[in-house]
Amino acid sequence: MTAPVEINVGLMGLGSVGGGVAAALLDRSETLSNKIGLPIGLKKILVRDPGKTRDPAIPSGLLTTNPEDILDDDDIHVVVEVIGGTDPAASYLKRALSAGKHVVTANKEVMAQSGPELFRLAEQNRVNLLFEASVAGGIPIVGCLMNELLANDVFSIRGIINGTTNYILTRMAHQGAEFQQALKEAQDKGYAESDPTNDVEGIDAVYKLSILASLAFHHRVAPQDIYRQGISTLEANDFRYANELGYAIKSLAIASLENGSIQARVYPALIPLDHMLAKVDGVYNAVEVEGSLCGKVLFHGMGAGREPTTSAVVGDLIEIARRIGVQGPPSPMVQNGRPLSIRSIDELETRYYLRLTVADRPGVLAQISKILGDGGISLASVIQKDSDPAQQTAELVITTHPAREASMQRSLQQVAGLEVVTRISNLLRIEGQLDPS
Amino acid sequence: MTAPVEINVGLMGLGSVGGGVAAALLDRSETLSNKIGLPIGLKKILVRDPGKTRDPAIPSGLLTTNPEDILDDDDIHVVVEVIGGTDPAASYLKRALSAGKHVVTANKEVMAQSGPELFRLAEQNRVNLLFEASVAGGIPIVGCLMNELLANDVFSIRGIINGTTNYILTRMAHQGAEFQQALKEAQDKGYAESDPTNDVEGIDAVYKLSILASLAFHHRVAPQDIYRQGISTLEANDFRYANELGYAIKSLAIASLENGSIQARVYPALIPLDHMLAKVDGVYNAVEVEGSLCGKVLFHGMGAGREPTTSAVVGDLIEIARRIGVQGPPSPMVQNGRPLSIRSIDELETRYYLRLTVADRPGVLAQISKILGDGGISLASVIQKDSDPAQQTAELVITTHPAREASMQRSLQQVAGLEVVTRISNLLRIEGQLDPS
Repeated sequence: MTAPVEINVGLMGLGSVGGGVAAALLDRSETLSNKIGLPIGLKKILVRDPGKTRDPAIPSGLLTTNPEDILDDDDIHVVVEVIGGTDPAASYLKRALSAGKHVVTANKEVMAQSGPELFRLAEQNRVNLLFEASVAGGIPIVGCLMNELLANDVFSIRGIINGTTNYILTRMAHQGAEFQQALKEAQDKGYAESDPTNDVEGIDAVYKLSILASLAFHHRVAPQDIYRQGISTLEANDFRYANELGYAIKSLAIASLENGSIQARVYPALIPLDHMLAKVDGVYNAVEVEGSLCGKVLFHGMGAGREPTTSAVVGDLIEIARRIGVQGPPSPMVQNGRPLSIRSIDELETRYYLRLTVADRPGVLAQISKILGDGGISLASVIQKDSDPAQQTAELVITTHPAREASMQRSLQQVAGLEVVTRISNLLRIEGQLDPS
Repeated sequence: MTAPVEINVGLMGLGSVGGGVAAALLDRSETLSNKIGLPIGLKKILVRDPGKTRDPAIPSGLLTTNPEDILDDDDIHVVVEVIGGTDPAASYLKRALSAGKHVVTANKEVMAQSGPELFRLAEQNRVNLLFEASVAGGIPIVGCLMNELLANDVFSIRGIINGTTNYILTRMAHQGAEFQQALKEAQDKGYAESDPTNDVEGIDAVYKLSILASLAFHHRVAPQDIYRQGISTLEANDFRYANELGYAIKSLAIASLENGSIQARVYPALIPLDHMLAKVDGVYNAVEVEGSLCGKVLFHGMGAGREPTTSAVVGDLIEIARRIGVQGPPSPMVQNGRPLSIRSIDELETRYYLRLTVADRPGVLAQISKILGDGGISLASVIQKDSDPAQQTAELVITTHPAREASMQRSLQQVAGLEVVTRISNLLRIEGQLDPS
């Protein structure tokens, strides 16, 4: 295949993730094309029911129910498969590769079971096969094992790679819920399926670990090579006792290499409360890679869902499209048409922490809060600390609601000028909101 | 340049990281060549003092004090620069790119100040310029922003990207140390330099944030665009009060994009104790990227040091070498000559948590511990819980020292057969060791 002037994509599947990929290609094709350095477009979408109402609407001319419209179209350079399941997805993938098409897939089951066969086909046909979305959604762990961390001999992979079970275990740990109750909550929230077997029995995690371990060790680790234990035998008491002993309970997927031998397992395990993996809560995923050079690197993020999975699929699509485009991507640091500006710190709006030493007498706080109030800054909390009777001073710690930096600095100067203020010890910004868990 | 049959590397600088890169290329060239799909070798190393004793020794024929021996050698395809500082490193990089050589650099100062100019040179000469090691050592954040996460519009970057200051702040937070004392400890441990200005005043973090923000927003964010505040005014009291209010204090590097406007700053800030960034301790680094699709993805790992930085440099080298090698890398999942095997779970050696219901009478623990002891399993702790007077039972929670899975399973069967044991509630493995901080 010679280098095309435009890259045509065939999309197989238009469920949740397929919809995200279609939206990226239809609504944001210019941004994508800029990042690639070549135009990219969606040529055909394989669906089951072309008459179904979709939001947003997809031009009906793009839809087909016939896989040949994608697999046999020589103008389609890349096939994106987001159907899921082994049948017919696996056969579509093989046919696409055999036809010399590059492939992006989100299919963990097919990659775990037939990865080596698909790679042979990709090599024979000199095309790329990428599958970032098959493990841990928005976390770029697959790409990092294949590229950025490749200088390392990997010693181990340890991960929380099933959001459903992690949600259930988090509820059991923090709310003292029993398994059935936590499972029902997960089902009510749409995190667990009505038949939760694949998730709670660790089958899903086994597929994902099979992929990660094979990449990490450059050696086939098949799903049947992996020991598996589900989480349904856990009881609320286990979490209480583990916590007393200083541990969290997490369903871990672990593959380690020692003395030329690989051991891989998925099971609920105790892990010290201070370990980063113990702090991964709710539907979040995390993977820790230990390498000969990099040491322990931990990745933490959303492991599933339409947007994170779309991030992975479209990321793969960009990578493949750039390789087809041959001449290399555009400079990564240069403005690509967006009229951005850079703001001064004066325009920052944030919460503040202010520590100051003041005279220990009535009315001082009133003077300070009047200045702040006049500057449009409202107080969130005030603590008086460490009175010093000898000096007749006290330490005040004030936090504010969000305010503008310029106002804060102006008000601070006025506060510093007050006769009752001995010293402004520190003005710090308060950053970050708690992540939902 | 036509595709070579062997890739020759010129290394500029043989300090700590240079030594790591040289070792990777000299001692592990076959492994590296396997990963690339082409032979790769080290042709020349620029040093200041060729007579210096080095461990391990470097063949003296590789050493030169003359940069022209690398920059003017047409057989050298890739220049790796690990000299540091702007002068003469910047001019070497420009000359290498102008001579049509690919470049890997660890130089944050040069990339922050002259990145756009270097990229123009790389584009004009159709060569690659990679710089993973310039930010956060072993954490693959630069590559992920340039590749895996590229489908996203990035909203913000928040990071702890200076290990020296994070070590100091961790000591101040956990040991109640004052700044000067914590700084001295950092210096004694080799984490801080004798003149610590670059680290504690945030200058180093500004260079790194300049690089990350430029990549994230595809728009130049120069060091002088970034607001900067150091950590030397912090006192132990600030950490105490922040903790009471529910916050940690961290030196954060933040760049955010809102309404077409970028705001970038490096300063010590309060961050909720439950936020993942609040849990980054000691010399560890972490970077959180928030993107339109991926949501919040956090990377955590070693931000400096010989091995992590070597991981980044050699990772870049592999990526460049693969692009030169044109036909693409070998299949990432397939065995590359290593005679690995896969171990059964029976051979696992780990610590265990065992919860069981037993008769509440004397001598029960003796029977259980005898069986475990006969199996070579020694107890680490025993807690008796929740006696049930009506049933005359009690719950026992036992943790063990490391034991083999096969022994544990055999012993467990015997324990289950004891007349005094009513129920084995759960057997869980204990995973993970606490990371040093």
